[in-house]
Amino acid sequence: MNWKARLLLLDGLMPSLGDDGRLAWGTLADAAEDAELVFLGLDRSDGGEKPCFAAVPGEGDASPRMANPQLWSLMATMEPGDLALYGGARSITDWHARHRFCAQCGAPTSIAKGGWQRGCESCGAQHFPRTDPVTIMLVEHDGKLMLGRGKGWPEGRFSALAGFVEPGETIEEAVAREVFEESGIRVHDVSYISSQPWPFPSQLMIGCHSHALNTDLTIDETEMAEIIWYSREEVTAALDGDGPFVAPPPHAIAHQLMHWWISR
Amino acid sequence: MNWKARLLLLDGLMPSLGDDGRLAWGTLADAAEDAELVFLGLDRSDGGEKPCFAAVPGEGDASPRMANPQLWSLMATMEPGDLALYGGARSITDWHARHRFCAQCGAPTSIAKGGWQRGCESCGAQHFPRTDPVTIMLVEHDGKLMLGRGKGWPEGRFSALAGFVEPGETIEEAVAREVFEESGIRVHDVSYISSQPWPFPSQLMIGCHSHALNTDLTIDETEMAEIIWYSREEVTAALDGDGPFVAPPPHAIAHQLMHWWISR
Ligand SMILES: [Zn+2]
Ligand SMILES: [Zn+2]
Repeated sequence: MNWKARLLLLDGLMPSLGDDGRLAWGTLADAAEDAELVFLGLDRSDGGEKPCFAAVPGEGDASPRMANPQLWSLMATMEPGDLALYGGARSITDWHARHRFCAQCGAPTSIAKGGWQRGCESCGAQHFPRTDPVTIMLVEHDGKLMLGRGKGWPEGRFSALAGFVEPGETIEEAVAREVFEESGIRVHDVSYISSQPWPFPSQLMIGCHSHALNTDLTIDETEMAEIIWYSREEVTAALDGDGPFVAPPPHAIAHQLMHWWISR
Repeated sequence: MNWKARLLLLDGLMPSLGDDGRLAWGTLADAAEDAELVFLGLDRSDGGEKPCFAAVPGEGDASPRMANPQLWSLMATMEPGDLALYGGARSITDWHARHRFCAQCGAPTSIAKGGWQRGCESCGAQHFPRTDPVTIMLVEHDGKLMLGRGKGWPEGRFSALAGFVEPGETIEEAVAREVFEESGIRVHDVSYISSQPWPFPSQLMIGCHSHALNTDLTIDETEMAEIIWYSREEVTAALDGDGPFVAPPPHAIAHQLMHWWISR
């Protein structure tokens, strides 16, 4: 055992924070005997080179897969470097926990290449961690921004619409299809703004801006509870925590996109 | 059986073209008795609404997964609409062919939701078609463009560097890491240019531009055979089919990015 190696302490897929609010670390001795270990990189913070690992949660120990209120409040207190490290570790350990078998032949697979691959001994297939591209988009018309409340979201919480990029689509096509499906709005002049990894589960959020051709909504009620056009003043107030709706938290790309929009 | 329904004729995963050079279509009677069918959308070209399907290739019938010279020449002759339709159909049928089993529990899965999902009856897991985000990037320094020849590529064929976005990365971070790993070059000012779906297998190519901080190459010889800085004149000549290297074909995003670069 490498005595210098560090193990990121996780509670299933949830982060463990120390008294200082930072991610808690242990040694490889803290991992279960038969745990699969994922190599996260080298920690050079104190001049040395300490390999860092995370353990794949045992079967049945990997929930919750989606962000829950407890995790959201924890994340709001974490510093950016810890948040990025936790996100990457969560994405990949979650993937391992849900890919113990070969999708091609059904045989068990085992971890390989320091956790960046799984191999099937039965059919030889190699499996790689999955990251799903997701578009998340600002839709603007005449100085107003279209925001939605998803089905099942708390009353008053609004965010940018979002959806997976489907096979065969460009980013721009995915934005236009998703907006039309959820709101009945046709958009043009789609432009890329910024991106963010989002580990619930492993997604690449691709933030875009677009212009609406119409404003009359046809809401997809299987997905969305409400869609509302908000003014610049309303969005500004919401980001300050004092508006007509509850905005996404600062660590979410939707918040950053809305901030970009009011700052232009 | 829906007598109006159309079946996209595929030879494994290869396209079948008619005498007119267009994609060949049959009826559902042309599919194998037990074939899984993927719904591709409605064809409204003649005023009606004909549902279009593709059949998932049988086991052992799905190769080749990567583009081969025969496919490249076929694709060069296909019209853009056919190319897009074939690409989407290929991505999703290939995904089904390689995901007959549940990665979570190993049990057989079956096609659901018109082919946009697979379900596991054993553990209840739902599986969705996968699309991998891949960055492909122009790297520029002092008016020159860095292009590479991958290991195993034909002599003289050069293209933009490319690599998968890893869990936990932004698009911009993926570009910087990939360029550094393959060439030893540090880049800054990464900007998004355009995207393209690429079905070998299902990928979302995310085309970017970046500026290099240095020009002294440290080539990753496990991935790349050569990396060369080419001048604007050399790239222009290559895109015209008469340069110091063989450029990617017009339907590849690398070609379009290089064209964007010389047209600025
Ligand atoms: Zn296998
Ligand atoms: Zn299952």
